[in-house]
Amino acid sequence: MPIPINRQLLLASRPQGEPRPDNFRLVETPVPEPADGQFLVRNHWLSLDPYMRGRMDAVKSYAKYVELGEVMTGGAVGEIVASRHPQYAVGEFVTGAFGWQEYTLSDGTLVRKVDPQRAPLSYALGVLGMPGVTAWVGLLDIAQLKAGETVLVSAASGAVGSVVGQLAKIKGCRAVGIAGGAAKCEYAVTELGFDACVDYKKGALYEDLKTALPEGIDVCFENVGGETLDTALRLMKPFSRIAICGLISQYSATEQYGLRNIRSVLVNRIRMQGFIVSDRPQLWPQALAELAGHVAAGRIKYRESVAKGLEQAPRAFLGMLRGENFGKQLVQLI
Amino acid sequence: MPIPINRQLLLASRPQGEPRPDNFRLVETPVPEPADGQFLVRNHWLSLDPYMRGRMDAVKSYAKYVELGEVMTGGAVGEIVASRHPQYAVGEFVTGAFGWQEYTLSDGTLVRKVDPQRAPLSYALGVLGMPGVTAWVGLLDIAQLKAGETVLVSAASGAVGSVVGQLAKIKGCRAVGIAGGAAKCEYAVTELGFDACVDYKKGALYEDLKTALPEGIDVCFENVGGETLDTALRLMKPFSRIAICGLISQYSATEQYGLRNIRSVLVNRIRMQGFIVSDRPQLWPQALAELAGHVAAGRIKYRESVAKGLEQAPRAFLGMLRGENFGKQLVQLI
Repeated sequence: MPIPINRQLLLASRPQGEPRPDNFRLVETPVPEPADGQFLVRNHWLSLDPYMRGRMDAVKSYAKYVELGEVMTGGAVGEIVASRHPQYAVGEFVTGAFGWQEYTLSDGTLVRKVDPQRAPLSYALGVLGMPGVTAWVGLLDIAQLKAGETVLVSAASGAVGSVVGQLAKIKGCRAVGIAGGAAKCEYAVTELGFDACVDYKKGALYEDLKTALPEGIDVCFENVGGETLDTALRLMKPFSRIAICGLISQYSATEQYGLRNIRSVLVNRIRMQGFIVSDRPQLWPQALAELAGHVAAGRIKYRESVAKGLEQAPRAFLGMLRGENFGKQLVQLI
Repeated sequence: MPIPINRQLLLASRPQGEPRPDNFRLVETPVPEPADGQFLVRNHWLSLDPYMRGRMDAVKSYAKYVELGEVMTGGAVGEIVASRHPQYAVGEFVTGAFGWQEYTLSDGTLVRKVDPQRAPLSYALGVLGMPGVTAWVGLLDIAQLKAGETVLVSAASGAVGSVVGQLAKIKGCRAVGIAGGAAKCEYAVTELGFDACVDYKKGALYEDLKTALPEGIDVCFENVGGETLDTALRLMKPFSRIAICGLISQYSATEQYGLRNIRSVLVNRIRMQGFIVSDRPQLWPQALAELAGHVAAGRIKYRESVAKGLEQAPRAFLGMLRGENFGKQLVQLI
């Protein structure tokens, strides 16, 4: 019987600016065997998320960066295929930071069990996982959204943004999105129920936002940063809030965009707050329960872009950083 | 008997960039007489504050700008010399937004009575008035300062900054200031008790702050903005707070500084919040009582720059915007 092989994607070199496929290296290693207290996961789906760009740089951040030669960081969901852990049985499905690889050993730390009957397995990496909870926490806990307010969310058709807009509508708010291209904007309005969506590629961001937001913004859920955030600052209302969830436009920038409208923070007494969803583990159960209810009832719609095979992960990741994906970007491994 | 004359300073023209003396015009008008429900104040001291620069521009802000030909906005303290108001008697001392003039009619709206026995009358415009309460609210309410934390405050020897540093020390915190020039920095450390003060005019702001703040910043109390704030962002700790009180470096700038280090807000989950002290009237009594206690006990020291005569107000104001004052800038009118 041949020894089973684990394919892995390692960080081969650090990007200068925008990452390239040769920053990653595919290797084949023997599938490891669980020691006592461990289990082995066969990953079915790998999540690709903007934060991973940050982990490629050797700079201090909220989480340790990936070392050269290490498996790239990433969330995945899969099935337990061997176990020497009393709380994890073969055949159970789990999600965790399993990395860009086909098999992962785990001791259960920060692992969550997933019921494949409740929703498609891949949803555990999107609307019923980190991105969905990020939308919920940013909107309801960080920004303290109230019924009747107006929300602006950038990257509106993405894994987080699409949930932000739909949660805002469920809460009785007006939801305006920003996305790249007519197709994404039309999807946000007709499929997701946004009140309006501005195509930043049209090149008239301020004017188009002003038209879509005649009374200004109560909550800005920021995924993009740079000019997008700077423009939103011009339209914020008194006592409004900005939840800084991501700054994808800046992650590969060799020079950071200079934000000129910070005076709006003073004049409008804005509360701007950065957040990382893993800081608030106590909110996950409530958020996941609510999101699952919305998905089951059809109140939240959800779209995925799927790349097939681990070897496609680098190109899919690079495309996502450029906004080429449509909805949640995944890699199907099995 | 000659008719008493009220000298007033009007906004004569709007500044392009830095204000000039000819943006103001001194006029003489008859002293008005109170109608029923009004009283007349003879102003003793006029306060000069950075926010007034904003009122000179015809742009939307948290308060209405001054119209051309109107008396310049400003806080003052004085004595009631005539009254037809049942709650205000001749001989009482009051403070309010009485404007850049020698006499003011008031109906009591937003007026506070001042006890001239408790502290020098002028303190009602500084440590025992708006600037002192601003320091208190920004540090304790907006930034939620906790014992043992490290505070950075810009414009450290000014009316607000000097109180911020001393309140921080009283609360058991480390206080680091930024000021312009060796004399102000020495004053902050030796007289006010700051742990360190960095002279931004030395031209090595980041390096000097890094030396003074080896473990980073928990609370940044920002009065200056621009490069000062951008540099502070590089030294903020995880879960730190920035209270945006003022952005004096930008008020006369024809092009706004571009803030490049906003990514720190995300990575460090910073809460950055702009505030205006008049939004929180409910906190004033407690703040004033505590500040009065600290001043009486010698725990808070306080310094004033005094210009004599209303006609000196424009030059003193322009000097303050350039940082030429030392401590609270006042105009003595009597």
